[in-house]
Amino acid sequence: MNEMTGNEQSSSYGSATVNSTPTVGVFDSGFGGLTVLRALVARMPQARFAFIGDTARLPYGSKSRRTIARYAQESARFLVNQQGAEFLVIACNTASALALDAIQDAVAVPVLGVIEPGAEAARAASHTGDVLVIATDATVRSHAYSTACRAQGLRVLEKACPLLVPLVEEGWTSHPVTAEVIRIYLDELNAEAAAQGMNPDALVLGCTHYPLLRPLLEQAVPAGMKVIDSAEAAAEAALRIFNELHPESLPPAGRVRCFATDSVDKFERLGSSFLGQPTGKVELVDLGG
Amino acid sequence: MNEMTGNEQSSSYGSATVNSTPTVGVFDSGFGGLTVLRALVARMPQARFAFIGDTARLPYGSKSRRTIARYAQESARFLVNQQGAEFLVIACNTASALALDAIQDAVAVPVLGVIEPGAEAARAASHTGDVLVIATDATVRSHAYSTACRAQGLRVLEKACPLLVPLVEEGWTSHPVTAEVIRIYLDELNAEAAAQGMNPDALVLGCTHYPLLRPLLEQAVPAGMKVIDSAEAAAEAALRIFNELHPESLPPAGRVRCFATDSVDKFERLGSSFLGQPTGKVELVDLGG
Repeated sequence: MNEMTGNEQSSSYGSATVNSTPTVGVFDSGFGGLTVLRALVARMPQARFAFIGDTARLPYGSKSRRTIARYAQESARFLVNQQGAEFLVIACNTASALALDAIQDAVAVPVLGVIEPGAEAARAASHTGDVLVIATDATVRSHAYSTACRAQGLRVLEKACPLLVPLVEEGWTSHPVTAEVIRIYLDELNAEAAAQGMNPDALVLGCTHYPLLRPLLEQAVPAGMKVIDSAEAAAEAALRIFNELHPESLPPAGRVRCFATDSVDKFERLGSSFLGQPTGKVELVDLGG
Repeated sequence: MNEMTGNEQSSSYGSATVNSTPTVGVFDSGFGGLTVLRALVARMPQARFAFIGDTARLPYGSKSRRTIARYAQESARFLVNQQGAEFLVIACNTASALALDAIQDAVAVPVLGVIEPGAEAARAASHTGDVLVIATDATVRSHAYSTACRAQGLRVLEKACPLLVPLVEEGWTSHPVTAEVIRIYLDELNAEAAAQGMNPDALVLGCTHYPLLRPLLEQAVPAGMKVIDSAEAAAEAALRIFNELHPESLPPAGRVRCFATDSVDKFERLGSSFLGQPTGKVELVDLGG
């Protein structure tokens, strides 16, 4: 059953049916990817968005590549087959790092991750060719950003910053404690870069929670260092796909539907600050497993 | 197959066979419960210990009671049927709160959680009858400590302190940032207690990670407030069970075997500081699911 055949907007576009409104599917293991959705919504007012957070099975970071691939494929099929998504954005660094190929194998639509766009944006921003990446422990251990940045001809140094996600989830996005933690992490990272003879001028935010810390991070980086948000970079790349698929002019749509596989409470409570607008009612879906 | 029939210590006790060495099974969703195991090892040098951390399926806090019960039963059966445990300590606050009955149904040996002993220790320590509990968000939402403390005739106020686990796992157990976070949490908790007309004189540590913060917590509590560690309280209760099962004198054993269902890296890296001795090689087991 195609759940898009509801009647919410069926009379809005004259002769256009609901199904003619293009739908973009966005997937994350949790709700952090709502920062990517926020960047997408800002760029594609003509699209509808279906977001799924696989909250029942997070964190992906501690699971094997094979398990992550299977979980991500299930969410991808839900977005394409049940929500009618015409392309997918994988708004999850771990799944982008470990399961992008598997997701592409599972569905017949374009699939975009967050890591390649982040690395491309870093190359565009850096003059020295030396960049820093901060991310979760799982993303750093995958070395996906290192690989993608090196493919862009960049030298790169990664650092896991495991306290930043819990600080964001505690709501301490402009708290002095968070500023101090950021200072400590960046001091360590810059000292290690200097010890390796690097001269970095770009800092890539390799975690979907970190855009909420952007003001504190901008204050903390050395003068002249640019802060690169993978969410923004991925949304720019998604816009290019969207414009290729839809060269015609389209009416505004802008509806967002959010799904989660468990515990919608935290999603609804914290999600709005990530999305920059109310998430609306988060719908519970069962993907099995 | 009983894996205890290995030959590691079979000649150590003269005519005693290995199987005569009593084994205590300890279960956690992760490795935090190693603080409980540490307290057990200190009290029962005559026992062998089998610890399993269900690291593949953590965190339990975001899962339903039914799912947690099923997972915990699988670990309990592993400890009893494959490791020969003669009683179990559930060193996991979430599983103790939500699945103790289900675990007792699954195995034919005594099963002890951490919450009841913590509440009993609070009653023994408090003169005013007012106690505070700090724990993870999931444990607080279960209100298991409130229920257990009220059953002891205590008034109780709980507070979720979600930053403390990541701070411990970052290794910042004596860091100024951690001291500041503790000060903020305890100020909020004491202010709320005062607003409710309470006069608390005991603080229960309702999370297995918190014993590593005990020195900072002792410094942060108001004068005269006792810090109650559920791990120590559970170990005291376990010792009473052990002594009932073994009134006879036993030779020292003290061997610890640690099992995990996924990602033994983090377990091995961080576990020793929780256990207070090397964990040894952590063995990977597959419980299915």
